[in-house]
Amino acid sequence: MKKANLLYAQSGGVTAVINATAAAVIEAARARPDAVGTVLAARHGILGALAEDLIDTAVLGPADLRALACTPGGAFGSCRFDLDPPEVNPAQYDRLFAVFAAHDIGYFLYNGGNGSMDTVAKISRAAGQRGYPVVSVGVPKTVDNDLEGTDCSPGFGSAAKYAATAMLEAGLDLAAMASRSGRAFVLEVMGRNAGWIAAATALAARNPDEPPHIILMPEVPFDDEVFLAAVEDTVRRLGYCAVTVSEGIRRADGTLLMEQEHDVKGHIQLGGAGQCIARLIHTRFGYKHHWAIPDYLQRAAGHLVSATDHAHARAVGQAAVDAALVGHDCVMPAIRRLSDEPYRWEVVPVDVAAIANLERRLPARYIRADGLHVTDAARTYLRPLIEGEVFPAFAGGVPDYPRFAMPGIACRLPPYRP
Amino acid sequence: MKKANLLYAQSGGVTAVINATAAAVIEAARARPDAVGTVLAARHGILGALAEDLIDTAVLGPADLRALACTPGGAFGSCRFDLDPPEVNPAQYDRLFAVFAAHDIGYFLYNGGNGSMDTVAKISRAAGQRGYPVVSVGVPKTVDNDLEGTDCSPGFGSAAKYAATAMLEAGLDLAAMASRSGRAFVLEVMGRNAGWIAAATALAARNPDEPPHIILMPEVPFDDEVFLAAVEDTVRRLGYCAVTVSEGIRRADGTLLMEQEHDVKGHIQLGGAGQCIARLIHTRFGYKHHWAIPDYLQRAAGHLVSATDHAHARAVGQAAVDAALVGHDCVMPAIRRLSDEPYRWEVVPVDVAAIANLERRLPARYIRADGLHVTDAARTYLRPLIEGEVFPAFAGGVPDYPRFAMPGIACRLPPYRP
Repeated sequence: MKKANLLYAQSGGVTAVINATAAAVIEAARARPDAVGTVLAARHGILGALAEDLIDTAVLGPADLRALACTPGGAFGSCRFDLDPPEVNPAQYDRLFAVFAAHDIGYFLYNGGNGSMDTVAKISRAAGQRGYPVVSVGVPKTVDNDLEGTDCSPGFGSAAKYAATAMLEAGLDLAAMASRSGRAFVLEVMGRNAGWIAAATALAARNPDEPPHIILMPEVPFDDEVFLAAVEDTVRRLGYCAVTVSEGIRRADGTLLMEQEHDVKGHIQLGGAGQCIARLIHTRFGYKHHWAIPDYLQRAAGHLVSATDHAHARAVGQAAVDAALVGHDCVMPAIRRLSDEPYRWEVVPVDVAAIANLERRLPARYIRADGLHVTDAARTYLRPLIEGEVFPAFAGGVPDYPRFAMPGIACRLPPYRP
Repeated sequence: MKKANLLYAQSGGVTAVINATAAAVIEAARARPDAVGTVLAARHGILGALAEDLIDTAVLGPADLRALACTPGGAFGSCRFDLDPPEVNPAQYDRLFAVFAAHDIGYFLYNGGNGSMDTVAKISRAAGQRGYPVVSVGVPKTVDNDLEGTDCSPGFGSAAKYAATAMLEAGLDLAAMASRSGRAFVLEVMGRNAGWIAAATALAARNPDEPPHIILMPEVPFDDEVFLAAVEDTVRRLGYCAVTVSEGIRRADGTLLMEQEHDVKGHIQLGGAGQCIARLIHTRFGYKHHWAIPDYLQRAAGHLVSATDHAHARAVGQAAVDAALVGHDCVMPAIRRLSDEPYRWEVVPVDVAAIANLERRLPARYIRADGLHVTDAARTYLRPLIEGEVFPAFAGGVPDYPRFAMPGIACRLPPYRP
């Protein structure tokens, strides 16, 4: 295979460890000067590739890469943008391959979730149709853990660790503040269609009386009365109740929970699921109620990264380069679990076209029969993914995350006019 | 002074380091067997003292105390309960001193905020009037940092560190996700009347272009147009805007920002300022918008404790015992700052009666002239309070916080019937 440049880009919601993957990609590519020339990164994902907004990662020295690997967010910028099908919008691909050709890009690595894998599949297909010589590889990343074909997705383990720790710590606060009038706490976590992060908060508890007492997952239709009865029972026994709720829970008729909430004036309340659940409890029982919505914090918590997750993120970056350099087109390095305890795993390539746009939800065996918590099988699956700590350096009381000045390289094409 | 037992209790909202104070109190009291017999703790603050719900802390061994010192929440339970004035409800004090007498309590240490200092002052006054021999000492604690008479309050530094880290990390996520359509992120932090925690998020930034771009504090009346103009300007320059908002911000007419919501008892339920601000931005400019509400997480984050705060928390516990044992009644050990850089401090006693129920707000010199951010003077004050890290032990991927079985001791009095 002739020597070519490599283009790496980040896509979709970022994670606490996507930059660990980026660092691993750059390090692995640099280790192969026989096959890779320049390692470029596109700013804001495929949008930067189309716009010819490219960064030469040579600006990052070895120490920079080590720091980058412990920095949350997406250092090169991400995007939420889907390419059109090549058959529908060939001009989009004309442009993309013109940029690739102008910068001698023979390897394209796209780091994202389901939608990003679809982008990889489309580019691979279009390149094949045109005979353009680029190897396209998907690199998995999503806090939602909803990618098919892999035991888990880099980014999830750290989000899960954050959520479990948040529930553990808030639960201690809640227990201290419990009073005879009853108290409820609701933690809303990410997960529009899949309850993986919510399920992981179960790892906060050492026994069934510890928070979270109830976990509401989008896989289970929400039933007000079943839920409220469980809350009341918990408060009667313990004086308080802690609930985790996925942002995307729905009632049996498919409506999101929040869509049925109205304020006193009859306006629809645009609050999230956590607020709705907390209000529901308060309205029925009058308990004091608090809710927390970590939002970005749960996927950006570089100060609380899972060592397992970090290792996964680096491994898929390395494996993606390896796959590209042997011409393994349209694959994604996936995590395959070899054993739960001790936790052992390996990286294997899976066919991107077969998994793009699929969405893996919690299997029934991970959900307790009453739908209000998880099973031991879920805990066994989840536990190793949050194990171990990778702490960043701190300076001045906060994590010492680097900020890199990364100017774009000179454009060789006219501006893109989509 | 004759040997007597010591009663310690926790009050008000708990913090990440109140148990560090508890551990220091117990250790300091144990180190003085000449003066202190048993070290008791009341469950759920003064309520436990009234109810004779007492714990003999001898159940906690030295290793337990070391673990307790790194555990968030309030190990003995807290309460939000104010004693009536002794002149109004003498029966309440009859009961309290009956419990004290039944358990030979000669030292009472109450660990809390403004309201708790009022409790100390009342008990001291009532004891004096009755000639009951008890030394009452207040021990400072509040994430709100609104206690007068002390440079800062134990609990604040860790909440501030959490909030600054949250803004830093969410800001990196936000920057990665920025797009031409504009993006805004709002972090809502605690602070009903004082913006100390909000101000501390300024420590996330290395320059004015870094998050948070705007800080909304309750000390500054909220003006929609001034705020929205600043948001628009920031997004025009950077593509995104990060805002910190204290839960208690108000408009110039004194109304809270969010549509006034009331709970079933008619109390205003705070916790909506972040959502309101995010919605305000979205409605005006159409930017994509996210908001985070850490709620309990910011005051329970034992995984991200400030070393300065932890040292303060231990020092006031030790000093409270020292004060009690020399008969220093109705005082609170306070933090006095000796220098900013290097940061040096000492503990000095202040008169509880003089500071009870006061509320220290951000001084004008800490607020930028436009009211939308803080000054360098604020940063100089805040920085040392979040410095240094005290990490807990981890097990199974989450902090290994101990759970202590702490049965109550046998009651010697009939049940309390208020």
